[in-house]
Amino acid sequence: MLKLYGYWRSSAAFRVRIACHYKGLPFEYIAVNLTKEGGEQHLPGYTILNPNRLVPTLVDGDMILNQSLAIIEYLDEAYPDKPLLPACPLDRAKVRALALNLVCDCQPLNNLRVMKYLGNELKQGKAQKEAWFRHWHRLALAGLEAQLEGTARRFCFGDQPTLADVCLVPQCYQAERVGLSLEEFPRIQRIVSRCRELEAFNLAAPERQPDAIVSN
Amino acid sequence: MLKLYGYWRSSAAFRVRIACHYKGLPFEYIAVNLTKEGGEQHLPGYTILNPNRLVPTLVDGDMILNQSLAIIEYLDEAYPDKPLLPACPLDRAKVRALALNLVCDCQPLNNLRVMKYLGNELKQGKAQKEAWFRHWHRLALAGLEAQLEGTARRFCFGDQPTLADVCLVPQCYQAERVGLSLEEFPRIQRIVSRCRELEAFNLAAPERQPDAIVSN
Repeated sequence: MLKLYGYWRSSAAFRVRIACHYKGLPFEYIAVNLTKEGGEQHLPGYTILNPNRLVPTLVDGDMILNQSLAIIEYLDEAYPDKPLLPACPLDRAKVRALALNLVCDCQPLNNLRVMKYLGNELKQGKAQKEAWFRHWHRLALAGLEAQLEGTARRFCFGDQPTLADVCLVPQCYQAERVGLSLEEFPRIQRIVSRCRELEAFNLAAPERQPDAIVSN
Repeated sequence: MLKLYGYWRSSAAFRVRIACHYKGLPFEYIAVNLTKEGGEQHLPGYTILNPNRLVPTLVDGDMILNQSLAIIEYLDEAYPDKPLLPACPLDRAKVRALALNLVCDCQPLNNLRVMKYLGNELKQGKAQKEAWFRHWHRLALAGLEAQLEGTARRFCFGDQPTLADVCLVPQCYQAERVGLSLEEFPRIQRIVSRCRELEAFNLAAPERQPDAIVSN
């Protein structure tokens, strides 16, 4: 069985969970507690699997793979049922570009280690950190909203979920955490609502994971 | 003919130039001056091509595509000679992961707009900005150096250049700009030296572009 090392709130791990559930691939979920004192991602047992000390990591038999996009493209090639990328190279390129807008130009700027560096090394307070988080999310979502005019129908690209939707929903989860309303981005808002009606996206949601810390 | 909108010092544009030269694809290079007052990436003539206001953008006939990795994968599929990704899904996944370590977890943290935000909004000085730049480069290159133990021979993956090398050389160009020595990363240093012996990598180098500003 596939083994997925993740963290409930990590957008990158969330993406891979959606892909696995959508494609009907059973997996064992192994929580790596990024917020524990010291961080479990820095333990030797994990760094040997992932020298970048980030989640997710996928283990499929002998293969150990990091980077959520590389993992999802691998799953899509190795387990071709319910594809997440279109068959035509041109369409595939468009879907990849939509996804990379979030995966490159938004998420890396806002993950836990960056927010920590802003606080610890650059002595930024809560307000500045939240403004940073909102700034990069707003820019990325605004760019995506404009691109979706040319590609979206029911989902980001056409009428079926693709890699782009798999990346969009976790990013919007993060945006909403800092009070950014999706109402600014009506196409995105509609698509995310549709995705959230699907079981795969629900099963993958952070608060549904065994390592979730949900405050009442 | 392909049209490539880029900027001489952009790592992302540099990657696409390497890919085009390596695959022998002629292209028209259109410079977008990111550092000019106001920034040419914000002009309506450009934002209609690229709503994210970043470089590069590729135009191939009717197709307009952003995101360097989506562009390179498209070129590799549409023009299969001299492939930049291996044929086997497992190998392809490994190459993608190596590339994404840089493309996601390093470059987006250090591009021009982020360095500007650090200076303008967070009032960080030159020393803090350079420390930031070095910090994320060192982390990413250290992670990659460890992963290369399992994949590298003459190049990042085996004996031929791949997408991973196409991303590595521009990132090392950036690292060296802030005085980070590649001697810390001996595998990376050897591979970059080999790449720099190849014409494709040389023709694509920032200082060789028509919009380069080279100080003596």
